Amino acid sequence: MKASEPAVLEHASGDQKAMAVTSMKALVYSGPGRRSWEDRPRPGIREATDAIVRITTSTICGTDLHILKGDVPTVSDGRILGHEGIGVVDQLGGAVSSFHKGDRVLISCITSCGKCDFCKKGMYSHCRSGGWILGHTIDGTQAEYVRIPHADTSLYQLPPQADEEAVVMLSDIFPTGFECGVLNGQVKPGDTLAIVGAGPIGLATLLTAQFYSPAEIIMVDLDTNRLDVARSFGATALVDSSDGKAVDKVMALTEGAGVDVAVEAVGIPATFDICQSIVAPGGRIANVGVHGKPVQLQLERLWAHNVTLTTRLVDTVTTPMLLKIVQSGRVQPAKLVTHRFRLAEIMKAYDVFGNAAAERALKVVLSNG
Amino acid sequence: MKASEPAVLEHASGDQKAMAVTSMKALVYSGPGRRSWEDRPRPGIREATDAIVRITTSTICGTDLHILKGDVPTVSDGRILGHEGIGVVDQLGGAVSSFHKGDRVLISCITSCGKCDFCKKGMYSHCRSGGWILGHTIDGTQAEYVRIPHADTSLYQLPPQADEEAVVMLSDIFPTGFECGVLNGQVKPGDTLAIVGAGPIGLATLLTAQFYSPAEIIMVDLDTNRLDVARSFGATALVDSSDGKAVDKVMALTEGAGVDVAVEAVGIPATFDICQSIVAPGGRIANVGVHGKPVQLQLERLWAHNVTLTTRLVDTVTTPMLLKIVQSGRVQPAKLVTHRFRLAEIMKAYDVFGNAAAERALKVVLSNG
Amino acid sequence: MKASEPAVLEHASGDQKAMAVTSMKALVYSGPGRRSWEDRPRPGIREATDAIVRITTSTICGTDLHILKGDVPTVSDGRILGHEGIGVVDQLGGAVSSFHKGDRVLISCITSCGKCDFCKKGMYSHCRSGGWILGHTIDGTQAEYVRIPHADTSLYQLPPQADEEAVVMLSDIFPTGFECGVLNGQVKPGDTLAIVGAGPIGLATLLTAQFYSPAEIIMVDLDTNRLDVARSFGATALVDSSDGKAVDKVMALTEGAGVDVAVEAVGIPATFDICQSIVAPGGRIANVGVHGKPVQLQLERLWAHNVTLTTRLVDTVTTPMLLKIVQSGRVQPAKLVTHRFRLAEIMKAYDVFGNAAAERALKVVLSNG
Amino acid sequence: MKASEPAVLEHASGDQKAMAVTSMKALVYSGPGRRSWEDRPRPGIREATDAIVRITTSTICGTDLHILKGDVPTVSDGRILGHEGIGVVDQLGGAVSSFHKGDRVLISCITSCGKCDFCKKGMYSHCRSGGWILGHTIDGTQAEYVRIPHADTSLYQLPPQADEEAVVMLSDIFPTGFECGVLNGQVKPGDTLAIVGAGPIGLATLLTAQFYSPAEIIMVDLDTNRLDVARSFGATALVDSSDGKAVDKVMALTEGAGVDVAVEAVGIPATFDICQSIVAPGGRIANVGVHGKPVQLQLERLWAHNVTLTTRLVDTVTTPMLLKIVQSGRVQPAKLVTHRFRLAEIMKAYDVFGNAAAERALKVVLSNG
Repeated sequence: MKASEPAVLEHASGDQKAMAVTSMKALVYSGPGRRSWEDRPRPGIREATDAIVRITTSTICGTDLHILKGDVPTVSDGRILGHEGIGVVDQLGGAVSSFHKGDRVLISCITSCGKCDFCKKGMYSHCRSGGWILGHTIDGTQAEYVRIPHADTSLYQLPPQADEEAVVMLSDIFPTGFECGVLNGQVKPGDTLAIVGAGPIGLATLLTAQFYSPAEIIMVDLDTNRLDVARSFGATALVDSSDGKAVDKVMALTEGAGVDVAVEAVGIPATFDICQSIVAPGGRIANVGVHGKPVQLQLERLWAHNVTLTTRLVDTVTTPMLLKIVQSGRVQPAKLVTHRFRLAEIMKAYDVFGNAAAERALKVVLSNG
Repeated sequence: MKASEPAVLEHASGDQKAMAVTSMKALVYSGPGRRSWEDRPRPGIREATDAIVRITTSTICGTDLHILKGDVPTVSDGRILGHEGIGVVDQLGGAVSSFHKGDRVLISCITSCGKCDFCKKGMYSHCRSGGWILGHTIDGTQAEYVRIPHADTSLYQLPPQADEEAVVMLSDIFPTGFECGVLNGQVKPGDTLAIVGAGPIGLATLLTAQFYSPAEIIMVDLDTNRLDVARSFGATALVDSSDGKAVDKVMALTEGAGVDVAVEAVGIPATFDICQSIVAPGGRIANVGVHGKPVQLQLERLWAHNVTLTTRLVDTVTTPMLLKIVQSGRVQPAKLVTHRFRLAEIMKAYDVFGNAAAERALKVVLSNG
Repeated sequence: MKASEPAVLEHASGDQKAMAVTSMKALVYSGPGRRSWEDRPRPGIREATDAIVRITTSTICGTDLHILKGDVPTVSDGRILGHEGIGVVDQLGGAVSSFHKGDRVLISCITSCGKCDFCKKGMYSHCRSGGWILGHTIDGTQAEYVRIPHADTSLYQLPPQADEEAVVMLSDIFPTGFECGVLNGQVKPGDTLAIVGAGPIGLATLLTAQFYSPAEIIMVDLDTNRLDVARSFGATALVDSSDGKAVDKVMALTEGAGVDVAVEAVGIPATFDICQSIVAPGGRIANVGVHGKPVQLQLERLWAHNVTLTTRLVDTVTTPMLLKIVQSGRVQPAKLVTHRFRLAEIMKAYDVFGNAAAERALKVVLSNG
Repeated sequence: MKASEPAVLEHASGDQKAMAVTSMKALVYSGPGRRSWEDRPRPGIREATDAIVRITTSTICGTDLHILKGDVPTVSDGRILGHEGIGVVDQLGGAVSSFHKGDRVLISCITSCGKCDFCKKGMYSHCRSGGWILGHTIDGTQAEYVRIPHADTSLYQLPPQADEEAVVMLSDIFPTGFECGVLNGQVKPGDTLAIVGAGPIGLATLLTAQFYSPAEIIMVDLDTNRLDVARSFGATALVDSSDGKAVDKVMALTEGAGVDVAVEAVGIPATFDICQSIVAPGGRIANVGVHGKPVQLQLERLWAHNVTLTTRLVDTVTTPMLLKIVQSGRVQPAKLVTHRFRLAEIMKAYDVFGNAAAERALKVVLSNG
C-alpha cells in the first residue's frame, strides 16, 4: 500500500443531485508547486476495516510543504494532502468494532493494521499495510471527508471535553517530538538537553521533554522569534546559531562537558554536525529531522565516546498516553497554534504557513466545525 | 593522567646488586616501527592506591600494532606496551584493601578510580583519572612487573582453578566484544545477527553473543580461514566479502529483511557501509572497530528506519560476570589462542601476530609462569 | 467474554446426513470428575474475525486437571476442554486477512484482539475480549475442530518443516516458562537461578532460561525422576526438597549468598516460602505457579532486601520469537514429550497424565494427523 | 561493620584544656525512651578513607523515633543518633582524594565503599562495609562532628549557592522516595499513581514522582492536614482513609481500573493491603515503608494480574542527579520543612517531631551554622 494507488471514484455519478450529496472539497496536489481547493468525490468504504471520517479540524505539516516542492516523489498528482486531523465517524466498514457512527476521533498520521510483525512490536511506522500513507500514497485529511484504513487501530476516541486545537497536535508533531526526540533520546530527570531546531517539531520536543524533568534545556535556532517562543515554553538557555558558533556556545554553557542528549530537529548536515559536536561521552543523539542527504559521522572521534544515535519515523504508539497527559492539563499543545483558519480557507493558510518566518507561524489550525 | 607522564625511574641505583633486584625486562616502544625487549627499572608504588603486579601471562592486542605503526600519537617514546595481563600481587599501596600480596589477579585494560562521576555510572572507559592508560600513557603489561593505579577497582581476584590462557582474554577482547558489540547491539534470543570482521574481537563478539541465543549469526570477512574458525565457534552462516558483494549476500540470507543487529568489528568506512546497508528497520548497529576516518552515514535513508547506532570504548564493567560465566564453562575463551610463547620471546610473538593472516594467528599468549 | 457463554449449536439439524457432516468428537467436561469423549456439533464461524481450525495435534495441561477437580468454577458443564493445539485452517471469517484455508497454524492458549488497550501494550493475557478463554469460557482444542476468535492475532503460521510435537509446546508451556519465569525473572548471563518445581512448566523454564546463559541453575523438587530429567536438560545442581531442607541446601550451594532469581513453578505457600528465603539482596522472585491461597510475605525482612517479585498470566507475546528459536534448533521442546496417543485415545491419555508421578509423565501428545 | 562496634574514645584525655578542644555535644541514645544532649569526645580519623565533618545542618528521621522506642535492636546504648546532615570537612584521612578541608558537603545516609560487588552494581544499601551505619552501628550526625567512613564515595560536594534546608532532604528522604517509590514503581508520563501515606517520605515521593509527569496522583492518608499539604504539593486527588474505605474510593476515582503504581509509604499490613487491592493488572507496587511484621500477599488473585512488587533500602545512587535537579529549581525540597531549631535545641525538636500530628510537623531542621 506504500506504492501509489489508482484514483478510483467510487460513487461517481452523472446525476447532479447525487453529485451534490457525494462530492466534497479537498486540497489537491497536482505536481510540484501546484495545489488547489477543489471538488472531489467523497470517499466510501473499500475494506471492511475502513472508516470514513468527516473532518472537523486539520492542520498543515512541514512535510506538506516538502511534497509541494516535489521532494517526495511517492506522492502522485491528484493526491489529497494532509495526515493530521480530527473528525466525526461518518461510515464504518463491517469489521470495525471499536467505533460507532458519530464518535469524535483523532486521526493518527500513521496507519497501523495491528496484526503484522512490525505492529505487534509497536513499530507502526513500518506496518506492512500502513505506516505513513495518509496524504502520501492514499488521500489525506485536508478535505471534508477522509477514508481511514485499519480504523480500529489507527483512530483514537476523544473524550467529550477534548479541545480539538490541542488534540490535533497529537496526530503527528507531539508523538513525533516525544517518540523520536524524547524517548529515543532517553531524556531523564536532571539531564542537560539541547534541541537543535525550534520549529513546530523542535518545540513539541521541548514541551514533551519536560515530562522527564531535565535540569537544562538548551534551544538552538537561527530565528530569534522562535527562540523567544522556546523560552516561554520552558527552555532554560537559548543559543542563536546564526553566527555559526552554536557548538562553542553550547560547550560554554555546559562548562565543556557537552550535553546528555542532543535532538536534531531540522534535517540538514549542518544541524546534525552541531549535535555530534556537543554530545557528551555517554550521551545520545536523537534524530528527528527528515534528511535529504547523507551526513558525515565523525566516527574517528566518536568511536570511543560511548554515544547512541537513533533515527525514527514516528510510530504514534504513545498516542493513548499523550491523550491522557493532555487531558490531565500537564501540557498545553494548543500553545503551538499561531494562526486559525476555516478549512475552506486552506489555500490562504498554506500561504501563511509557507512563509512561516515572516508570519511568525508555528501551527495553523483549520476548522470545519 | 590521559596525557603522557614523564618517565621516572623510582628506584634507579648505581649499585649493581640493587640493580639486579630492581631491574626487569619489558617490551619498549621507541617510536614508529621500533620495539625492543630490554632492561627497565622495576616499577614501585607511587600512590597509596597502587599495586605492583608480577606478570605471569600477557598477550598482544591489535592496538599494540597500531601503536607501533605510529597511529596513536598519545604514546610517547620509551613507553612499555601492553594492556592485558594476569599476574601475582607483589606490592600494595597503603590504601588498597581488597587484595593481598600473593593474590593472583586479572588486570583490566581499563583503569577505574571508582569515585568519579563516570565510574559511578559504570562508564569506566571515561574515568577522570583512568580509562585506557596502561601501555598508552603509563607503562603497561608486556613486562615482568607493572604498576596498576586504583588497584582496588582495576584488578579482579582470580579463582584458584582459573586457566590463565582463558582468563587473560577478559583483560580486553571479551569485555570489548561483549559490551561494545553484544550489549550495545541488544542481542536478544531469536535475533538475526551479523558480525562484520572475524578477527579476535569479532570472534569474541561471536562467542559472547551466544549468551543471548540469537537464532542466526552471519559472519562476514575476507579471510576464509577466519570464516572457518567462525563456523567452528557457532556462526550459522558465512559471508566471504572479498568480492564486494557482502550486502547482497546478507540480504539474500535474510530474505530481504536485513539483520536485527549488525556489529562493526573492523574500523573502516567499507565495513561500516556494510552494516548500515544490512540493518533492518528497528535494528541496531553496534560499532566496535577503532576508526581512523569519518564515515558517511546514509541519513537520507536511515532517518525513517528506526535504527540505533552505538559506539563505545569498553568499560570492563562486565568483567565480574564474565569471570563467573567462564568459570561455569559456558564459554571457552582459550579457543582464541593460536600461538604460545614465553614472555621473553615476545619479539618473536610480535612477528607472528603482526603477520596474522599468513600465520593464521588469532591471539598469542605470553607466559611467564 | 471471560464469563461463560451459553452453549449454542449453530448447525444443529434433524437431518441424519447433515449431522454426519457437521458433528465431531470432543473431550467434554460435565462437572467435577466427569469427562467424556463424545459427539458434538462442529463449530462454525460466528464473527468475521473467527477461524475454524481442524486439530492435528493437541496436548493436556495441568490446568485441565484442575478444571476436572472442580477448581475452576468459571468452566461450565458441557465445555470442551483444551487450550493448546496445532491444526489446519478449515474456514475463515470475512475479516481474517493473515491466513488462508489449508494453512497449518499454532493455536495460542491466549486469545488476543490486537485492538484493546491491554493488547496494544502486549498484555494479551488481559485482552478485553480474549485472554484465556479456550477450554475455559468457550470450547477448546481437545476436539476435532475448534473455533478461534480474533484469528489474525491469535494464530501463528507454521513453517513447512515444523515438528508438531515440538511446536505444540509453544501453545502454552514454553511461553509461560519463558515470559513468567525467565523474562520476569530478568535472567542474565552469569546469574545463579533456582527453579522450584520440576514439572512441565518448571522444565520449560529450565530450557528457556538457558537462552540467557545463567552460570548456575539449581532445580528444586520432591520427585527424583523429575530432578534427573532436569539434569539432562541442563540443571547444574539438584535439590531434593522432600526432607524440608531445600532452603539450607540452596544457601549452602550459593555459599550463603542466595540466588539472583528464584522461580516459583508450583503454586503453593511452601514453595513460595522457599523462594522468598533463598533470594539474594537485589534478586528477583518470578511467580509462575497458579495459587489457590494467599501466602505470607516476609516483608519485615524483605523490605530492605531490594527484591522484585513478579506475577504474570502468560501473554504469549514471545510466540514469534520462540518459533524462530525453535526453528534454529537452539532448543528442543519435544524433549518434554513422554507419551504419545491418538486424539481418539484422549480418555486414556488423561488417565496417564493424571497419574504423572507413577507414569513418569511430563507432556502427553495427542495426534490426529 | 553492620554489627555494633565498641565505643572507643580516641582522644580521651584527663587534661581539662585538651578536653575543651576535643569534646563536643551530641544526641545520645541510652536505651528505649532515653535520649540526651551531652558531651562526647570529638571523633577522629580511624581509617585513611575517613573524613571528619563539622555539622552545620541536621534533621530527625522517623527511624530515629523507632530507635528510641527500642524497635531497632542493632543500635546499642551510647550511640549518637542521626543519619542526615550537611557540614564542613574538618579533617581528612590520607586516602581521601575528592575533598579538601573546608569543603561544604552533603552526608548520605548510606555509606558506600565504592569497591565491593554491591557498590559496583549501584546497590550501596548493601555495601559490604557500609550501608546504613550512621546513627545505627556507628555514631551519627546529630552532633557537632561526625566521622564519615569511605568519605570519597559517601559525601557529595555542595555548590556554593546551595540552600542547606533544601539539600539536607537529600541525605535520606528524597532519594528514598525517589528510588524506592518512583524509580522502583517505574512511574511514567500519563500514569495513575497512588501514594499510601502522606508523611515526609510519602510527600517526598509525591514531589519526586512529578519528575515523570504522571497524569493522576492520588494521595491516601488518615490525616487531613497532611492531605491538604499533599494537595498543595501537586496531588490531583485526596483519599481520607480514616473510614476504612480507601480501596473503594481509589477504585471509584479510577473508574474501576485501579492504579498503574501504588506506593506503600507507611509500613504496616493495612496500608500494604490497600496497595495490593488497588493495583491494576500490569501495575507496580513499590514498597517504601519499613515493616515490622509479615503481610499476607493475595497471590490466589494476583498470580494472574501481571503485577510487580518491589522492596528497597535506599541506595542514594541518585544523589548526584537529585542535587542537579534541586539546583535547577524544578523541585523545592525545603517545602517539607515545618519547624526550625538550633542544633543545641534538639531535645525540644525531638519533642515536636515525636508529636507530629498535633504539631503538624513534617521535617524539623536543626541548624548549627
